Amino acid sequence: MKISIINGPNLNLLGKREPAKYGSTSFDDYLATLRERYPVIEFDYFQSNIEGEIIDEIQRKGFTYDGIIINAGGYTHSSVAIADAIASVHTPAVEVHITNISAREEYRHRSLIAARCLGSVAGFGLDSYRLAVEALIEKLKQEKSE
Amino acid sequence: MKISIINGPNLNLLGKREPAKYGSTSFDDYLATLRERYPVIEFDYFQSNIEGEIIDEIQRKGFTYDGIIINAGGYTHSSVAIADAIASVHTPAVEVHITNISAREEYRHRSLIAARCLGSVAGFGLDSYRLAVEALIEKLKQEKSE
Amino acid sequence: MKISIINGPNLNLLGKREPAKYGSTSFDDYLATLRERYPVIEFDYFQSNIEGEIIDEIQRKGFTYDGIIINAGGYTHSSVAIADAIASVHTPAVEVHITNISAREEYRHRSLIAARCLGSVAGFGLDSYRLAVEALIEKLKQEKSE
Amino acid sequence: MKISIINGPNLNLLGKREPAKYGSTSFDDYLATLRERYPVIEFDYFQSNIEGEIIDEIQRKGFTYDGIIINAGGYTHSSVAIADAIASVHTPAVEVHITNISAREEYRHRSLIAARCLGSVAGFGLDSYRLAVEALIEKLKQEKSE
Amino acid sequence: MKISIINGPNLNLLGKREPAKYGSTSFDDYLATLRERYPVIEFDYFQSNIEGEIIDEIQRKGFTYDGIIINAGGYTHSSVAIADAIASVHTPAVEVHITNISAREEYRHRSLIAARCLGSVAGFGLDSYRLAVEALIEKLKQEKSE
Amino acid sequence: MKISIINGPNLNLLGKREPAKYGSTSFDDYLATLRERYPVIEFDYFQSNIEGEIIDEIQRKGFTYDGIIINAGGYTHSSVAIADAIASVHTPAVEVHITNISAREEYRHRSLIAARCLGSVAGFGLDSYRLAVEALIEKLKQEKSE
Amino acid sequence: MKISIINGPNLNLLGKREPAKYGSTSFDDYLATLRERYPVIEFDYFQSNIEGEIIDEIQRKGFTYDGIIINAGGYTHSSVAIADAIASVHTPAVEVHITNISAREEYRHRSLIAARCLGSVAGFGLDSYRLAVEALIEKLKQEKSE
Amino acid sequence: MKISIINGPNLNLLGKREPAKYGSTSFDDYLATLRERYPVIEFDYFQSNIEGEIIDEIQRKGFTYDGIIINAGGYTHSSVAIADAIASVHTPAVEVHITNISAREEYRHRSLIAARCLGSVAGFGLDSYRLAVEALIEKLKQEKSE
Amino acid sequence: MKISIINGPNLNLLGKREPAKYGSTSFDDYLATLRERYPVIEFDYFQSNIEGEIIDEIQRKGFTYDGIIINAGGYTHSSVAIADAIASVHTPAVEVHITNISAREEYRHRSLIAARCLGSVAGFGLDSYRLAVEALIEKLKQEKSE
Amino acid sequence: MKISIINGPNLNLLGKREPAKYGSTSFDDYLATLRERYPVIEFDYFQSNIEGEIIDEIQRKGFTYDGIIINAGGYTHSSVAIADAIASVHTPAVEVHITNISAREEYRHRSLIAARCLGSVAGFGLDSYRLAVEALIEKLKQEKSE
Amino acid sequence: MKISIINGPNLNLLGKREPAKYGSTSFDDYLATLRERYPVIEFDYFQSNIEGEIIDEIQRKGFTYDGIIINAGGYTHSSVAIADAIASVHTPAVEVHITNISAREEYRHRSLIAARCLGSVAGFGLDSYRLAVEALIEKLKQEKSE
Amino acid sequence: MKISIINGPNLNLLGKREPAKYGSTSFDDYLATLRERYPVIEFDYFQSNIEGEIIDEIQRKGFTYDGIIINAGGYTHSSVAIADAIASVHTPAVEVHITNISAREEYRHRSLIAARCLGSVAGFGLDSYRLAVEALIEKLKQEKSE
Repeated sequence: MKISIINGPNLNLLGKREPAKYGSTSFDDYLATLRERYPVIEFDYFQSNIEGEIIDEIQRKGFTYDGIIINAGGYTHSSVAIADAIASVHTPAVEVHITNISAREEYRHRSLIAARCLGSVAGFGLDSYRLAVEALIEKLKQEKSE
Repeated sequence: MKISIINGPNLNLLGKREPAKYGSTSFDDYLATLRERYPVIEFDYFQSNIEGEIIDEIQRKGFTYDGIIINAGGYTHSSVAIADAIASVHTPAVEVHITNISAREEYRHRSLIAARCLGSVAGFGLDSYRLAVEALIEKLKQEKSE
Repeated sequence: MKISIINGPNLNLLGKREPAKYGSTSFDDYLATLRERYPVIEFDYFQSNIEGEIIDEIQRKGFTYDGIIINAGGYTHSSVAIADAIASVHTPAVEVHITNISAREEYRHRSLIAARCLGSVAGFGLDSYRLAVEALIEKLKQEKSE
Repeated sequence: MKISIINGPNLNLLGKREPAKYGSTSFDDYLATLRERYPVIEFDYFQSNIEGEIIDEIQRKGFTYDGIIINAGGYTHSSVAIADAIASVHTPAVEVHITNISAREEYRHRSLIAARCLGSVAGFGLDSYRLAVEALIEKLKQEKSE
Repeated sequence: MKISIINGPNLNLLGKREPAKYGSTSFDDYLATLRERYPVIEFDYFQSNIEGEIIDEIQRKGFTYDGIIINAGGYTHSSVAIADAIASVHTPAVEVHITNISAREEYRHRSLIAARCLGSVAGFGLDSYRLAVEALIEKLKQEKSE
Repeated sequence: MKISIINGPNLNLLGKREPAKYGSTSFDDYLATLRERYPVIEFDYFQSNIEGEIIDEIQRKGFTYDGIIINAGGYTHSSVAIADAIASVHTPAVEVHITNISAREEYRHRSLIAARCLGSVAGFGLDSYRLAVEALIEKLKQEKSE
Repeated sequence: MKISIINGPNLNLLGKREPAKYGSTSFDDYLATLRERYPVIEFDYFQSNIEGEIIDEIQRKGFTYDGIIINAGGYTHSSVAIADAIASVHTPAVEVHITNISAREEYRHRSLIAARCLGSVAGFGLDSYRLAVEALIEKLKQEKSE
Repeated sequence: MKISIINGPNLNLLGKREPAKYGSTSFDDYLATLRERYPVIEFDYFQSNIEGEIIDEIQRKGFTYDGIIINAGGYTHSSVAIADAIASVHTPAVEVHITNISAREEYRHRSLIAARCLGSVAGFGLDSYRLAVEALIEKLKQEKSE
Repeated sequence: MKISIINGPNLNLLGKREPAKYGSTSFDDYLATLRERYPVIEFDYFQSNIEGEIIDEIQRKGFTYDGIIINAGGYTHSSVAIADAIASVHTPAVEVHITNISAREEYRHRSLIAARCLGSVAGFGLDSYRLAVEALIEKLKQEKSE
Repeated sequence: MKISIINGPNLNLLGKREPAKYGSTSFDDYLATLRERYPVIEFDYFQSNIEGEIIDEIQRKGFTYDGIIINAGGYTHSSVAIADAIASVHTPAVEVHITNISAREEYRHRSLIAARCLGSVAGFGLDSYRLAVEALIEKLKQEKSE
Repeated sequence: MKISIINGPNLNLLGKREPAKYGSTSFDDYLATLRERYPVIEFDYFQSNIEGEIIDEIQRKGFTYDGIIINAGGYTHSSVAIADAIASVHTPAVEVHITNISAREEYRHRSLIAARCLGSVAGFGLDSYRLAVEALIEKLKQEKSE
Repeated sequence: MKISIINGPNLNLLGKREPAKYGSTSFDDYLATLRERYPVIEFDYFQSNIEGEIIDEIQRKGFTYDGIIINAGGYTHSSVAIADAIASVHTPAVEVHITNISAREEYRHRSLIAARCLGSVAGFGLDSYRLAVEALIEKLKQEKSE
């Protein structure tokens, strides 16, 4: 099982950026934990601050991987193009957010990307990513059993 | 560990109601699976079509349980009162939705309840509930380790 | 032929409440007239001020009755949950209003329920209910002839 | 008793136009049925695609007829002028729609005409017209008994 | 002189719920003080988390009591039905809020209920109830002197 | 000096239509008075309930007349096409309204036509037309003196 | 006959301020012409840049004068207080604007004051004031003949 | 105890202005009654139609008085500046309105001032001022007892 | 191949109307050029200022022609009825505009008609019509090759 | 004659992406056809998923090419920066869309780019590009003939 | 070089008013520093809480001074009249704000005045005024060198 | 003292792009002047049309530089991601604009970035950058003196 994790803008600063809001663990450290917890899953990780590179990555992984986990950061709220990329590929995507975006600024309440994903997980800190992994595992299990 | 699952209006019809959208498993059957999967957790289940009874239940469970999992159904989009109830109690709540509400009618995109919860899980069918359980387990584990 | 009439909040005060707007006949008196006029139809009547009890009733009648006539009163304009209940059951529903809601306050112009019903009748006083009965009779006749 | 039925734009195509939505009966055929069903009523029928001709007709019939049944089609949602015409005459008007306009595009949800009519009937196919006839008969009966 | 005090959702948690916002006095304790301060007034107290039960209570008291004091809590901002109930009865109602709702979230700024009440009092903590009592006493005095 | 007066929908009913709002003088009678008062001016009068015929008339008069006085009635608030017609011709137009449209329904507050006219006169009953005549006379006098 | 002309902010700069838009005649010069043209009318003139002083003036003149002509300038679009002042006095007021406010910035399209006036005249340069005088003369003539 | 009462635009016309809405008592007469009822309180009264003078007065009283009672009239709905003044001083302010502003025009429903005040009282006629006095007395009593 | 060109309001003034915006060629002259350029195509031309006559024409041509080219002028932005007519017939329609409507007034940015057409061409002066012809030729070629 | 074709995000997936919506031809194949059809034109082709690279390309081509054909994909609806780039260069640009964007989601109806282009072509599948070529050829021909 | 500094409502309280937000220096003290720093510039200072007096001052200085520095305080967000005054005079104006108004309440984000000024400086505490001085000096230098 | 100047999309065309709006000086030439004027400051300059590269640069400079001066060009109005980057780093940022964005198109009035910056400077041509430098110098001076 191959899962692609795609992080958007400023998520490379995790651990260093507003720790009260985003925690003090870097994403690399978290990824190590995740890989340890799910040894049979092959995780690929990509981060970019550039909207179009996120689209490139979705296109690269979106026809062969089993799942995409995407946290589009600030692009969540304005990017028709990323939403279109998700709709254009075959791999199901799960939207994750570290913080509870519904409890933040008004302009963070609307996600343009959510509608094109399988589902969304938001507000559980870095654990949101694990829950997305869990969701994809279950989804695959169900598809196989059908 | 005690978790209270609270389902709102029309969720008593699960399995029977628009199966293409909500699946064909009844919640009782699903709950049995969930209990089997997490034998150490004590699950309490409550469903009501009445907004105020949902508030009553949040108040009853909200000072002693370890977590609340709430799917407020149609009240999600209009109930200041349920949101206030969640804010009034001590137990952390997780919002779940069976369907991907962001991919449905415009008026289902806004959740008044989300901002008062720990986080939200939406779009994974009944598995959304299990993901919420996973989120609460992790949350507690972290709190204990602090 | 079995028709369930469901009245929402404050409609128990009919005859007593703002007679200039709602008339001076109580619903019980009107119902008697209706039963007399359509002796072959079995009318069941339910009124509640509680949104969730209206949902309960829709669910109770919505799989066996031939038609539901619903005047959701003030819930018409805000209840996603009642609209969902109507969408969840099999019995066709007709929305009725005693007054012409389009000629009243701005917030009464939008009905969340209408879109889930077969159709709507508004503005003919208590006669709106009879017109809904007529609509359901015709609907059934057509279905049988198909 | 004299009733004027006024149909707006594109309703001359009934039976031919999007039959899945509007049915396959032409209005002429339907009108014949209606006249048969209510032999004592004198029905006058007028259709025009021109907004101003609908106003002309409302003015012609609006001082001597017992009732107007109007389906203003696409003008329903934008015509202050037709609404003004209805308000300017003495004959009570009933608004009808073949489809359930509340279940269609957002811009069809608002009727500018409804507020100036006695009431509205929508969503029952061509039977909406008969229900309007029924409403007018009852209305007249009540006025006479007063 | 008989005054009915009706409290809406979550107000049963007063003293226990977000004390920084709502204070640490329970409503029962406060009511005792109020009764002591106005010994000649007969206070009836009702609290429910259920919107429809609040309507039931307004209807029960609204034809015989001298005044209703209502804090509809979270229903203040969405309940056409409670507003309709107040308009349907004869007893004048006064809207109260413990907190200054204009200084809180945007969605708390609009009250659907206010327009149907005699007037509103908001922001003085539990003392808002006493001010409502004062308002009703004065109102009655004026009516008698007319 | 040649002035064209163009009246839109329902203005043919003046004197007969809602006299409390529009007065009890017919436009023909008023026009006679106007001609008497301004004997040197040649008044041409046109009324139509049809939006496009109003445009036809604007085009017919708009290259040779000295002024157009237009009361577009209900089309005032929605007709881009009439506004375009006024912009397309050379004759200056003055918008008039019998009633004070700013004091009526919200949807009557916006005039699409006003921006293309020289100016507007509203609220003085039929005298609004005379004021428009006065405005055009003065305008011409000024142009000649330049 | 006594008419009070009240000019709002920046109208003291007429003749000097943006002449392409407002002309090059000062209001004093224009007023002289007006007085010459209507020798039997007693014109009182007041200008202030202060919103409250305009209200003071409306109150001073509003119980004894025959008419008020008001150009509230920039306050036209935001002043509930001036609108209230006009509603509070007995003298009828006419709103005038030198420019065609409907053809300028969006925020100049709405007048809060118009609804409380007899009517409005806009877009005819300084001649708008004379038209307002004409409107008031006619109004008085009509009242006397009643 | 020193209380400053500040009245905004058009409130100097009380008793004379739209008596059906605002009553027929002048504020001076009412103030005499109030002083009689609360002899130990020193009331200072100020009225101005000028927004900035109301700000001046708030600044003059706002550092030494025990309470401010403010009815900003038409400025209530637009004045950021008065709201800022209240936020800038130390004396707590209570907003009052004679009429029930929620039951009037849409633009009167929003108060910019309310959020900066302790609380609001609206709809009880002139008695709203007395209720504000009561609120301030209680507030002070509580502060002393702390 | 038969193509019907339908022009809406004020397009009869082409060449004469605001030449800076719409050019100085009359549509008749342009049509001659077009016919010359596409000799095998039979062009039918219709222009009307009347919304309903445009609908009539769409209905007349819409069941037998190969393509409709429509420039609905000012009706583009408000006519549900023309949009419905296009949806009611079988012939594919192409929307054209001479000017770039996205670069003009806000209210010209939205086309109600576009959604019912095959596609749109705007901004190329009269050449927009030729591009529409090209689009229809290609469309037909493709359909035949299928 | 040199034309630069610039395609935005996800258009590299043409032929592979949602074929029901976008067709099954890849852009490379289509481009070959286009070059064959217009042998005298030098076509340069650029595609990027990165907003800023599209801007780079517009700047590179925008001072020397004869025309730009741009399909900005998902950036059409949000990119002020691409619109600014088009406004900054000298080469005229034509906006194209494969699908009829007016018939899709609400957020696709507004194009920020259109206002800065010569014109727009939308809804004709890949043929939209050829129509843009035709438009540019004609435009150049006209400019030369001037 | 003569610069007029104009401060609006509540800025007379600087140093005393919400020091955490506005600092603890009075404007008089700050002005002394400014004069010291720019000895060749003649600074004139004016402060008023009255909107119209700010307009008076702009008119007084606006034809002879080299620059106006204006902080309109709370009037920034609602005053069409002050914006008109700036547009009416010849002296260029610079808008300043002590706080970063974009980071405060929603209603402070829009400035009606900014569009009529040369430019704006906001968020640098009292140093915003010095930056405005610097901007005006540079502006003058450039104009002279032209 | 080290200052990083970051320019967004199309600002590489300065001097060449719409000179009437943006001037005819290239940014390189301007930068030379700036370095000359502030010899002790080390200026680093970066320009990119790519949103994500601007974020990269903010992250590179944002932990070690003394100040960032950012003109995000067209991204100013839509980029949550750039705003997040500024909030994520430690270096204070100043927003600059060459033109007065409040005096341009509606969609340029809102800056998403402003709220995360120390302050903003707009409308002074290239001098806006120098004013930002001045602001940062003063800011540092103050911080040192604290």
